[in-house]
Amino acid sequence: MSLLWPGEHRAGDLFTDESIVAAMVRVEEAWLAAVTGSPHDLGDLVGPADLPVLARESEDGGNPVIPLLKLLRQRIDPDLRETLHTGLTSQDVLDTALVLNLGATIERVKADLSVQIGELAYLAERHRATRMAARTLTQHAIPITFGLKAAGWLHGILDARDVLIAAADLPVQIGGAAGSLAAPTVLAGSPEHALDLVTIAAANLGLAVRPPWHTARTPFTRVADAFVTCTDAWGKLANDVLLAGRPEIGELAEPAVAGRGSSSAMPQKQNPVLSVLIRRAALAAPQLAATLHLAAAEAIDERPDGSWHVEWSTLRTLARRTAVASSQTAELLGGLQVDAERMAATLAAARPGIDAERTKMGDDGPYLGATDQLIDAALERAQGKPC
Amino acid sequence: MSLLWPGEHRAGDLFTDESIVAAMVRVEEAWLAAVTGSPHDLGDLVGPADLPVLARESEDGGNPVIPLLKLLRQRIDPDLRETLHTGLTSQDVLDTALVLNLGATIERVKADLSVQIGELAYLAERHRATRMAARTLTQHAIPITFGLKAAGWLHGILDARDVLIAAADLPVQIGGAAGSLAAPTVLAGSPEHALDLVTIAAANLGLAVRPPWHTARTPFTRVADAFVTCTDAWGKLANDVLLAGRPEIGELAEPAVAGRGSSSAMPQKQNPVLSVLIRRAALAAPQLAATLHLAAAEAIDERPDGSWHVEWSTLRTLARRTAVASSQTAELLGGLQVDAERMAATLAAARPGIDAERTKMGDDGPYLGATDQLIDAALERAQGKPC
Amino acid sequence: MSLLWPGEHRAGDLFTDESIVAAMVRVEEAWLAAVTGSPHDLGDLVGPADLPVLARESEDGGNPVIPLLKLLRQRIDPDLRETLHTGLTSQDVLDTALVLNLGATIERVKADLSVQIGELAYLAERHRATRMAARTLTQHAIPITFGLKAAGWLHGILDARDVLIAAADLPVQIGGAAGSLAAPTVLAGSPEHALDLVTIAAANLGLAVRPPWHTARTPFTRVADAFVTCTDAWGKLANDVLLAGRPEIGELAEPAVAGRGSSSAMPQKQNPVLSVLIRRAALAAPQLAATLHLAAAEAIDERPDGSWHVEWSTLRTLARRTAVASSQTAELLGGLQVDAERMAATLAAARPGIDAERTKMGDDGPYLGATDQLIDAALERAQGKPC
Amino acid sequence: MSLLWPGEHRAGDLFTDESIVAAMVRVEEAWLAAVTGSPHDLGDLVGPADLPVLARESEDGGNPVIPLLKLLRQRIDPDLRETLHTGLTSQDVLDTALVLNLGATIERVKADLSVQIGELAYLAERHRATRMAARTLTQHAIPITFGLKAAGWLHGILDARDVLIAAADLPVQIGGAAGSLAAPTVLAGSPEHALDLVTIAAANLGLAVRPPWHTARTPFTRVADAFVTCTDAWGKLANDVLLAGRPEIGELAEPAVAGRGSSSAMPQKQNPVLSVLIRRAALAAPQLAATLHLAAAEAIDERPDGSWHVEWSTLRTLARRTAVASSQTAELLGGLQVDAERMAATLAAARPGIDAERTKMGDDGPYLGATDQLIDAALERAQGKPC
Repeated sequence: MSLLWPGEHRAGDLFTDESIVAAMVRVEEAWLAAVTGSPHDLGDLVGPADLPVLARESEDGGNPVIPLLKLLRQRIDPDLRETLHTGLTSQDVLDTALVLNLGATIERVKADLSVQIGELAYLAERHRATRMAARTLTQHAIPITFGLKAAGWLHGILDARDVLIAAADLPVQIGGAAGSLAAPTVLAGSPEHALDLVTIAAANLGLAVRPPWHTARTPFTRVADAFVTCTDAWGKLANDVLLAGRPEIGELAEPAVAGRGSSSAMPQKQNPVLSVLIRRAALAAPQLAATLHLAAAEAIDERPDGSWHVEWSTLRTLARRTAVASSQTAELLGGLQVDAERMAATLAAARPGIDAERTKMGDDGPYLGATDQLIDAALERAQGKPC
Repeated sequence: MSLLWPGEHRAGDLFTDESIVAAMVRVEEAWLAAVTGSPHDLGDLVGPADLPVLARESEDGGNPVIPLLKLLRQRIDPDLRETLHTGLTSQDVLDTALVLNLGATIERVKADLSVQIGELAYLAERHRATRMAARTLTQHAIPITFGLKAAGWLHGILDARDVLIAAADLPVQIGGAAGSLAAPTVLAGSPEHALDLVTIAAANLGLAVRPPWHTARTPFTRVADAFVTCTDAWGKLANDVLLAGRPEIGELAEPAVAGRGSSSAMPQKQNPVLSVLIRRAALAAPQLAATLHLAAAEAIDERPDGSWHVEWSTLRTLARRTAVASSQTAELLGGLQVDAERMAATLAAARPGIDAERTKMGDDGPYLGATDQLIDAALERAQGKPC
Repeated sequence: MSLLWPGEHRAGDLFTDESIVAAMVRVEEAWLAAVTGSPHDLGDLVGPADLPVLARESEDGGNPVIPLLKLLRQRIDPDLRETLHTGLTSQDVLDTALVLNLGATIERVKADLSVQIGELAYLAERHRATRMAARTLTQHAIPITFGLKAAGWLHGILDARDVLIAAADLPVQIGGAAGSLAAPTVLAGSPEHALDLVTIAAANLGLAVRPPWHTARTPFTRVADAFVTCTDAWGKLANDVLLAGRPEIGELAEPAVAGRGSSSAMPQKQNPVLSVLIRRAALAAPQLAATLHLAAAEAIDERPDGSWHVEWSTLRTLARRTAVASSQTAELLGGLQVDAERMAATLAAARPGIDAERTKMGDDGPYLGATDQLIDAALERAQGKPC
Repeated sequence: MSLLWPGEHRAGDLFTDESIVAAMVRVEEAWLAAVTGSPHDLGDLVGPADLPVLARESEDGGNPVIPLLKLLRQRIDPDLRETLHTGLTSQDVLDTALVLNLGATIERVKADLSVQIGELAYLAERHRATRMAARTLTQHAIPITFGLKAAGWLHGILDARDVLIAAADLPVQIGGAAGSLAAPTVLAGSPEHALDLVTIAAANLGLAVRPPWHTARTPFTRVADAFVTCTDAWGKLANDVLLAGRPEIGELAEPAVAGRGSSSAMPQKQNPVLSVLIRRAALAAPQLAATLHLAAAEAIDERPDGSWHVEWSTLRTLARRTAVASSQTAELLGGLQVDAERMAATLAAARPGIDAERTKMGDDGPYLGATDQLIDAALERAQGKPC
């Protein structure tokens, strides 16, 4: 369903019902391979046609793993029927499936961030000396350059990338019924071998190993916070573009794309659609992350009574929207139009008021301070640790 | 997509992409009928097969009305092509379509609330004298009856119903490009006639008339707050059922339904699935309403740059989840199992501590205070103004 | 502590620790008067000097009522020592004290709303024909008048007033240890007499009577939602003023006040401080209300283990900030400067684009649609039911 | 004001108005020392008696720096009057002052986390083999040990510590009027020297250097997210203690402290006050962090019009409450009472149901899986990188 979140097609198959089912099947496969010592392909056993019944029946057990297992057990090679899922609990399968989808989302976002960083580095360098009016509390402050502004955006994006990378080492969740690996230990013959099975399954899935985190939900909250840190940085930037694109200011404009930005009533209008949609994401994301933190705090017992369940759809929504905004921001920056003449005109019109601090300081230069050095520092940081 | 929100099928077609498209078409029909003076059925012009392209193209204009109009104009009787949508703006169509879906959701929830009220009235009456231990700050406090507890739940539900009814008089949104009815006035020949067209269109849709509220979003925030007031009341109740259904307490149990509440790992388990899923909704709803309030506060200009756009999907999610939880709560209450013996046993085991206040007060009766009168008051209120 | 919420002094003594203590004492007095049949003035028994010890000791019992009672019992006429608080529980006293402070806050806000309504009615009338450019999605749309814009703001304020009035009939909270009026019934001799005591105490406090709502928290959430509906309306308006006050637009300006709006670095600047501070409040309020709804949903048992406790300070913060923003908005509107020439200049500069819809409609008039009628409707509504 | 947040005295002077003023003065001192090359003690120039006027006048300029400077300039050695604050802007001073208070809060929390980690390591080791019933979705699942549960809590705390440490390298904020170091460059004679001044001032304050982050608010959001990650971990733990301390379960109890946990109405009660108050903090913190993220996303221009202002008090509230909950959690864990007999009794009563998975697996051992290995892993992690 995406009609009400324009641009959602950019998220593609991330966290769709199909992707979640596929990921749950991958988790069962990875565990089955670890337990039996040989790979098993269960990918053909369920498909899109099963989604309606899976969705409906997921209510009975309270999660989608139970009806999925029912289907798989009906369709799997009878020799594997007993072994399938043995040692796992629903949370192992669903949490790890969510992790796999989060991992795919993070990769997508990281790729977009790299593009954004490149574009911003270009803008910062290209407009190093493009003078414009700084604005504080809505009023003209002092002259700056657009390159410095772009460098500020760049720091926000680089911060977001750092936070995202720090959250990206996603772990498998395998703990069995209550996080003690009790059934896996019986299955494997010893605790050590059970832990080996976990390690093998994690490797099969390309995930890190960590002790069961069924009630210590930091892996989810860190990613959520990182996504919001991204939407914060994009939102700041989109807000600046929206303002600068107002006709009275006209210093920046979205890339012109045929057919985009038209109005249903007013033929003359060209709306800054990308920025509008990016800003939209930034307004909603913090409250979604708040829900995930509440869920973490309410993770009572060895599996909680509702706060686990609220995480799934919340993570999906936050992840998909982040991927959409990420793509939109990359596109926005890739074609951002900078009107240096309008910037200069605004600055000229802002005189002499905008020079008041300069005058007070007794300066008669361009009053750009350490702009060059600050831009260089941002560019250097952008060259650093790759995304 | 509902695999990650088990029970979502209960929301049926409320706020689905199809329902939104159908509602938008209804709005165009209602306006067309008002303008032309005769009814026009556009319902066949678009269908489910159009959804993917509508979803994708909604990004270009930033909302789904623009691509919908493109389709309608291609397919409509050429004589109507010019008149279609003339006088309206995208926001008129989409806001009113959301209102129509909200209205349908409210009707659904009100019906469930009536059921819930009936069940709670029954429980309050039936267990008027079923004694149990009250608990405050997790500890045994004094004896009460389960009927009084049910009466407390009932007040919460009745409050929610009152708040919902107060928010249910949903208005049409028709203001034209900037809320002045400029184009409708040209179309109608005079401001008075333009206002008449609005009144007729509203009547066609079964909606109230109010001046354009394109940037005064109270109609949406009131409904959102009402939905959250509902999930609050249901969440409170679900929390009580979850606690009382713990094996160490065992005073309440969910209705037994074959196949529900099983575990993927532990064959003995019977999980309180309905309460878990109800509680889940209550944990997420307040943050969704917060986003709608933020959107209202950020409604700059005559149509804002992002805060309008964030409302649509947020309203949908909140509305659908409210409908799901509403249905689940009605079912939960309809089959709630009350174990009066366990209640009595807990109470007995809590003695003499639980009688400390009674003893201090020098009382030797059952110490139930005004329980009967309070239950009567709740029952009377439940009989009141129908839902 | 208000250094970090500039303007907080406007909230005066609403919800200060002193006011809370005074209100708790008033509740005890009202109950004592009901029980003994004669008034007792306890107001002198505790004072500001007691606040530090009350604050510190409130941790031991988890609420401030317990240490307050300790003090009162030490200092009260020994004949009343036994009777004081008998029949009440901590929640009765604290909830009702919060209600009293909420009531005082609501009165303050209602008075400000009346002023705002008057100012907006004036602006809508005065600028009925002051033409300006409407803006949608940041771009020029069609011509409107500033009077129409003011009428839109006015509807938002009137909505907020309606919601606030609907929430303002605040009830007393008296239920005894678990909401059954057990101890009051012993005290009074019968349930009916216990209910009479509640009625008398409520009357003493000027509050409505309702059955105990210790775990049905709608009275608090309704007020919270109403406060946020207010900050939404003020935030919308402040956002518009902030934008219109940018030097590139310059159509509106805050009232000029000597010494206000200066900068620590830039001598030329005049910052729109009131609007900035109003907008600030609107950004934070929704999340505070969300916390109160969560608390309502988590109100387990007959008194919950944490979700009651989170309400107190959250209500205080939300209430005080609402009062501050209310006062600031009244002041802002009272002196709002409208620059009709700049509005006309913007409009002229926006031509011919801004006339595109008019041209398409084949109109050659001022294209103001039903502006007069819509302004009249807003003015009429403003004359309606007094605040 | 702390009466409504029992336990707030534990936060001591963190983020009090006095501490904020002292920190702002320290920032001015550090800059003055950097500029003049010699230390200047301004600490005596303002004091508690100035707070009321500072609070009130902070509204005029929209922040507390402006009235503080007015006072300092009146009272400072006239030779320094000109130099004081030159090159800085209000945001430099206030942001850095907030950073200093955040740093002090983090130190406090880190110390508490160390204590908590020690206590949890002790509990995990001590109760390595103390058997109890695991609970999932409120129902008995399989047997575990309390040591494993404590190890799970420990991982949550260790995660929080890691996140906090990653956020703790707090930077100075010095950028001048618009983040370009324009005035500092004039003052210092060259951009390089201006950057040197920043480095010196940062060193004077014990803070890291980073380019101006006036509109890239990650330093604040990272700390906020880290605080919430802490309250999540404490909330999870408090929820478990609250449940296990219910009389029907009785497996855990808070440390007994004379005078704590009493009730105003019921003499027998012993309320789990610490856990209640910790849980309270966990319910509110996520929404506070959400507000800070919103502020970051809305950081338009070179200094935004409201979203900067909403950060200050929000950070204060979040920081103080985190410090309070941190201290309470350390105390709770230090005296947590574990009733191994009740745990054993629950487990016995849960048979045979709780053994269903074990039986299905064909196991006849204690069915504790890799409990020992998982506890060892947690203990090892706790020994790692010191806090």
